[in-house]
Amino acid sequence: MEDPRVIVIGAGFGGLTAARALDGAPVRVTVVDRRNHHLFQPLLYQVATAVVSPGDIAYPIRAILRHQRNAEVLLADAVSIEPDSREVVLADGRLPYDYLIVATGARHSYFGRDDWEPFAPGLKSLEDALEIRREILLAFERAEREPDPEKRKRLLTFVVVGAGPTGVELSGAIAEISREVLVRDFRAIDPREARIVLVEAGPRILPAYTPETSTKAQAVLTRKGVEVRTGHAVEDIRENEVRVAGESLAAGTVLWAAGVAASPLARSLGVPLDRAGRVLVEPDLTIPGHPEISVIGDLAAFLHQGGTLLPGTSPAAIQQGRHAAKNIVLARSGQPLRAFHFRDKGSMAVIGRAQAVAEIAGVRLSGLAAWLVWCFVHIFFLIGFRNRFVVMFEWAWAYLTDQRGARLITGRLEEPRRK
Amino acid sequence: MEDPRVIVIGAGFGGLTAARALDGAPVRVTVVDRRNHHLFQPLLYQVATAVVSPGDIAYPIRAILRHQRNAEVLLADAVSIEPDSREVVLADGRLPYDYLIVATGARHSYFGRDDWEPFAPGLKSLEDALEIRREILLAFERAEREPDPEKRKRLLTFVVVGAGPTGVELSGAIAEISREVLVRDFRAIDPREARIVLVEAGPRILPAYTPETSTKAQAVLTRKGVEVRTGHAVEDIRENEVRVAGESLAAGTVLWAAGVAASPLARSLGVPLDRAGRVLVEPDLTIPGHPEISVIGDLAAFLHQGGTLLPGTSPAAIQQGRHAAKNIVLARSGQPLRAFHFRDKGSMAVIGRAQAVAEIAGVRLSGLAAWLVWCFVHIFFLIGFRNRFVVMFEWAWAYLTDQRGARLITGRLEEPRRK
Repeated sequence: MEDPRVIVIGAGFGGLTAARALDGAPVRVTVVDRRNHHLFQPLLYQVATAVVSPGDIAYPIRAILRHQRNAEVLLADAVSIEPDSREVVLADGRLPYDYLIVATGARHSYFGRDDWEPFAPGLKSLEDALEIRREILLAFERAEREPDPEKRKRLLTFVVVGAGPTGVELSGAIAEISREVLVRDFRAIDPREARIVLVEAGPRILPAYTPETSTKAQAVLTRKGVEVRTGHAVEDIRENEVRVAGESLAAGTVLWAAGVAASPLARSLGVPLDRAGRVLVEPDLTIPGHPEISVIGDLAAFLHQGGTLLPGTSPAAIQQGRHAAKNIVLARSGQPLRAFHFRDKGSMAVIGRAQAVAEIAGVRLSGLAAWLVWCFVHIFFLIGFRNRFVVMFEWAWAYLTDQRGARLITGRLEEPRRK
Repeated sequence: MEDPRVIVIGAGFGGLTAARALDGAPVRVTVVDRRNHHLFQPLLYQVATAVVSPGDIAYPIRAILRHQRNAEVLLADAVSIEPDSREVVLADGRLPYDYLIVATGARHSYFGRDDWEPFAPGLKSLEDALEIRREILLAFERAEREPDPEKRKRLLTFVVVGAGPTGVELSGAIAEISREVLVRDFRAIDPREARIVLVEAGPRILPAYTPETSTKAQAVLTRKGVEVRTGHAVEDIRENEVRVAGESLAAGTVLWAAGVAASPLARSLGVPLDRAGRVLVEPDLTIPGHPEISVIGDLAAFLHQGGTLLPGTSPAAIQQGRHAAKNIVLARSGQPLRAFHFRDKGSMAVIGRAQAVAEIAGVRLSGLAAWLVWCFVHIFFLIGFRNRFVVMFEWAWAYLTDQRGARLITGRLEEPRRK
């Protein structure tokens, strides 16, 4: 009898961990992804802010799974799942499975205001990051050529919506670009005049952290030159304009780092979803009525510790990937599936050069110490030696010289989206 | 009296050298380019073949000229030149000049068959290189999923048109990808089955080199698995098909590396052009009737040594840039302009890992020795220490491990141009 077939959709942290955890198991694994590369998403904002190159944080999925004899990789677009016939429907074909792991993640949510998206792009893919890098660098280029002081001011105003880790990291990095990196590059403008505003609807930044860490992070951001505005949701976004708390901000660049919208693939499973479109999974990560289907990572709404929702982070995805793989092995040998328990190893966010906040095992760190821990953990987890080495070098270089090696404006030459 | 204004259009090797050569001279220099980065074009094919990342061979123009007090940089699109009023017309403004250096280069020419371009992209910009990288990598991905052996064969056939240095380097690099890099990555196909055909209308490859070097290079290419077809021009190119010498080649990927079409900006100068659209410059690199305008680099048709045309290479552009700058300084002090003389320091082309051909001062080298010289010269000329270091590392890494760090398929997810 042929080994059963396990399909893993999505090669992020969760899906890739699950596939690797099945190495040597008596199953045939097929990893399906729309892209040919795994993305080290925690460093994506560094591509957007010209610290590292796309190639430093992405790695071909085939190369990662090259030596795993029972695994194959398909570059394909999964459009829906048919749990009854046990098939994944691709844009150009169908794939039958015996076990399925769905790990297609989430994007940002515009809270029903998808019309804001063209004026406030989010950051999830390499293409997003390159587009944002282009926007940020072009803003300074256009300001350099703009004679009207009002328009120049607008071009040099950057608004980041949402103060989770991504929003905090982005706004801190833009402040550094303007105050440290570009200082001597222009003749007509002083990049230090740039205004960076971080808008958060909740009462404090980094809401998933302790209030002490939020306060600390806000103090560091303020010192870097970021205006932090908490307690007010964005009311409207148009071309070159953000309305918040009744006030209109003229801003040439608006970046979106708020909300969560799960991958639309979840809908085809025919099981209850939460408001963000995430799948309400069973304690063992499977879906009701289908123990052969596990949903993991940002796509899963997993309730732990008295009913709180496990936040969508890479450690959670990695642990769930390993767990889903283990359950498939158990099921194959006729044993019952086990419930998933998340082991919290802490969380951290970087605010800029040598500045971060971290909460690890109840200990709160900030400043250089937290940054060093952050560097260590992130370099350690980067897949592939080469990337680890190059990223370390790029960081050291950016740190020592205030230079950004990846400061390229690429993309076709047609008129950019906005002015 | 204010210092006279020198406009340099184009920040390639010629324009950038001219701008830097004017450092300290009593002039105000403005460098105008459509892109924010200088591109190290000799290594562009290595981006297209996933050896290095875009950031490794491109550098922001502002960063290069940061410390030059009399220079400024404008990110702008020059659309025409008005020699009588001494103005450069931009897409969004006008720039008056006292002296003008035009260095906007050339693209590939389809010999009046521009309808071939969508099926056979050329390689001149970073965007071109990323698109070609995408095409090459996607061809293997599609072949992996293709059940029809006929179609699979077509997907794995690569045709490169034109056997100058770019065509030779590209075809050699594709042969290496298929025979060395991707070997273990796929399950359904063997990438070594890929067929790489290099088509050249002339009687031999590398026509600008000696016949001995051509023979040597062809032998190396053949050993690497490239089919070399000389003496036949391409008759037609359609989707997935190239016609040459009456035969139809079914090829999923066709790359164009032939012909020269000068930048259309030359036309607005109102002076005689050659068939490729290049400006027939005077011996001092200026244009007839306008000693204040110099044309340099690939845009210039310069006749030397008994009427032969100086080929468009980076050494020629660099020497002409330095010369045009010197003539401006002479003109300012009322001295006559000097004629340009090219000093030939040799030429080289790389055919693959540890394989190159070089002709330096009458000495012909090939194999590892030529490759080492090539590496040394190219790393030496790469602008900026960071790039030099990273490129060296990436080469060493690719050499030692057969890996390609930059093997990413990027670009929006809409259906690619061809199937």
